Amino acid sequence: MIDFNFISPTKIYFGSNKEDLIGQICLEGGYKRVYIVIGQGSVKRNGLLKKVEDSLTASNIKYKVLEGVRPNPTIDLCHKGIEEARIFAPNLILAIGGGSVVDTAKNIAVGYFYSGDSFDFNLHKVKPTKALPVGVILTIAAAGSELSTSCVIQDDKKQIKQGFNDDIVRPVFAIENPKLTYSVSKVQTAYGIVDIMMHTLERYFNYSSENEPADGFAEALLKSVIKAAKVVMKNPTDYDARAVIMLMSSLSHNGLTSIGKNGGFFVHPMEHAVSAVYPDVAHAAGLAVLFPAWAKYYVNYDVDKFDKLARNVFDLHKHDKLDNAKAGIKEIEKLFKELEMPLSFKDLGINNPDITLLTNIITNNGTKIIEHPKKNMDKEVVEAIFKSCI
Amino acid sequence: MIDFNFISPTKIYFGSNKEDLIGQICLEGGYKRVYIVIGQGSVKRNGLLKKVEDSLTASNIKYKVLEGVRPNPTIDLCHKGIEEARIFAPNLILAIGGGSVVDTAKNIAVGYFYSGDSFDFNLHKVKPTKALPVGVILTIAAAGSELSTSCVIQDDKKQIKQGFNDDIVRPVFAIENPKLTYSVSKVQTAYGIVDIMMHTLERYFNYSSENEPADGFAEALLKSVIKAAKVVMKNPTDYDARAVIMLMSSLSHNGLTSIGKNGGFFVHPMEHAVSAVYPDVAHAAGLAVLFPAWAKYYVNYDVDKFDKLARNVFDLHKHDKLDNAKAGIKEIEKLFKELEMPLSFKDLGINNPDITLLTNIITNNGTKIIEHPKKNMDKEVVEAIFKSCI
Repeated sequence: MIDFNFISPTKIYFGSNKEDLIGQICLEGGYKRVYIVIGQGSVKRNGLLKKVEDSLTASNIKYKVLEGVRPNPTIDLCHKGIEEARIFAPNLILAIGGGSVVDTAKNIAVGYFYSGDSFDFNLHKVKPTKALPVGVILTIAAAGSELSTSCVIQDDKKQIKQGFNDDIVRPVFAIENPKLTYSVSKVQTAYGIVDIMMHTLERYFNYSSENEPADGFAEALLKSVIKAAKVVMKNPTDYDARAVIMLMSSLSHNGLTSIGKNGGFFVHPMEHAVSAVYPDVAHAAGLAVLFPAWAKYYVNYDVDKFDKLARNVFDLHKHDKLDNAKAGIKEIEKLFKELEMPLSFKDLGINNPDITLLTNIITNNGTKIIEHPKKNMDKEVVEAIFKSCI
Repeated sequence: MIDFNFISPTKIYFGSNKEDLIGQICLEGGYKRVYIVIGQGSVKRNGLLKKVEDSLTASNIKYKVLEGVRPNPTIDLCHKGIEEARIFAPNLILAIGGGSVVDTAKNIAVGYFYSGDSFDFNLHKVKPTKALPVGVILTIAAAGSELSTSCVIQDDKKQIKQGFNDDIVRPVFAIENPKLTYSVSKVQTAYGIVDIMMHTLERYFNYSSENEPADGFAEALLKSVIKAAKVVMKNPTDYDARAVIMLMSSLSHNGLTSIGKNGGFFVHPMEHAVSAVYPDVAHAAGLAVLFPAWAKYYVNYDVDKFDKLARNVFDLHKHDKLDNAKAGIKEIEKLFKELEMPLSFKDLGINNPDITLLTNIITNNGTKIIEHPKKNMDKEVVEAIFKSCI
């Protein structure tokens, strides 16, 4: 186990109709002016926003709404939000939505106190030192941003999608009602499942000691999510399966599954480049293409860990370690197929991916590597993995 | 999954020499006057208290020390602490020790603002509404009080040992340096391991849905702790094993392993009665006697769960469920023997236990039951389990 500091202070309100508590939660927290951030209108159409507004009004809380967050959320909308918020002067930013909405809220929360371009945080030019509190009403179980330190924003002009991580943006509360995710489409649900699995798997493949509790938590989380995934694809209104996926989205990304070890990501940076260059690619769709390719490359360098995954998550016990490890990867591919995920650049609608550009973005023109305990990801590795996705 | 609210806001500072940060942590938290609570002097003898005092002094922080917390901590010392603290007017109570010291600190933290007897909280006569923040420097990995809502105090005169649970007493920070536990004696280390296992197992035997993530976390935690236990009994200075046990003590009792399900305890209340009537009985020693007895009684009512435990924690796969379930209990008994735990009242030094008195304490003279999903624990059940421990 390595030395670490860990805090996950977000209060979770979990269960049916917990969003009805929003007025009371804001009152108790002293949040009298709330700047609400939403996506592209679904929470207006399904009545959730109205319900929230009514609850806030009943508690005599003022609010203002910023609409229009898209998948791969843009820094432009964050800038607009920061300007508006400075006039409105809220004491809480309330995200109603999924990861993109939460990340936009987080960028606004830190940008509010910063005189420069709030993309500076994402470019790691500046470390945030002050933030408005962020609250969340979660409507998509996927990104885990509702409990995480992570804030990923895209600059379309610069073709950069980049995240920063800081405890300062961990939300103060997250309201999680699994029923709000009943209406999430099959493909979006599948994207969420892939995202949750990736947050867990990427942490898993960092260095671990022989008896690493975090790895046990990761395996438990994966088993639970995979079981629930199979249920929910058949029955989208199975409460318990939706509940498992929702709670696991939060615990997949709050640091629990990397507590006491490093939690660096290997595949996410590759996907961020893909989404930045090809903005129509959904984050999880990109991950579903890239992870199996990454795994097939790395299984040769980290056979013990892939074998452990195969044994403990997929209950595979082939005699030959490498065979077993590869069988585990096959199980993940099989699951992604069941989830109707894309399996190649072609499936993503990219017939001629600009692999040189993508590789250059990730490796900063070959000058940067992504560290991995068994084999660092340099330009050659990244290029080879991208090529195997064509 | 059931509806729940969950918050575990304690910041963990984990690793070698993290106690050196205490001055800085207090400065950052604005804790300028610190009331320190310690046990029976070991932190004076080993230099830890001096180190802390020096760090506080270097940060210009005033402190005062309350010494003398014993195992099964008494309300009398809490009263003394409250009186002293009211004169000293601290803005942090800092526990340096294990569970008894932390629980004493918690009682002082809520008693400070309460004009009545602070044992009222433990008797559930009053719910705490205000508390001084509590910080912890952990020296014994066992009770998990460093992250928990729990505060168990004993009234020797009334022969009552009772706890209350409230988020208000969750510590604001916990400094956990595994090396501080190197010198914990073999028997105390074993007690800690039993306590951690019990916090996890008791939650485990509450009702769960078929795919309950909390149960997966519990199984992972148990596997990790059992592995580390075997290492540490042979080599008390194995850093990684000590680290696993320390971190798992915190996560066994912060609610993670019952997130989304009930977390009621079945065996702890029985042990609290034993410790109250026989104050020389160490908490974990009592648990080590009572749990196998409880399990052997309940395996007949909850065979599926005991079978699941046997499969997922002890890798037992006998064809007959009941056989398998019983084999799992045997593994726990075997482990407790390896840990040199007592196995009966006699081993606890109690030749003629007053089973009627013990049963009456727990069941409030037969008027109270402890709820269990398969068979509630009434007077008859409690009595039968006690009798099987003779």
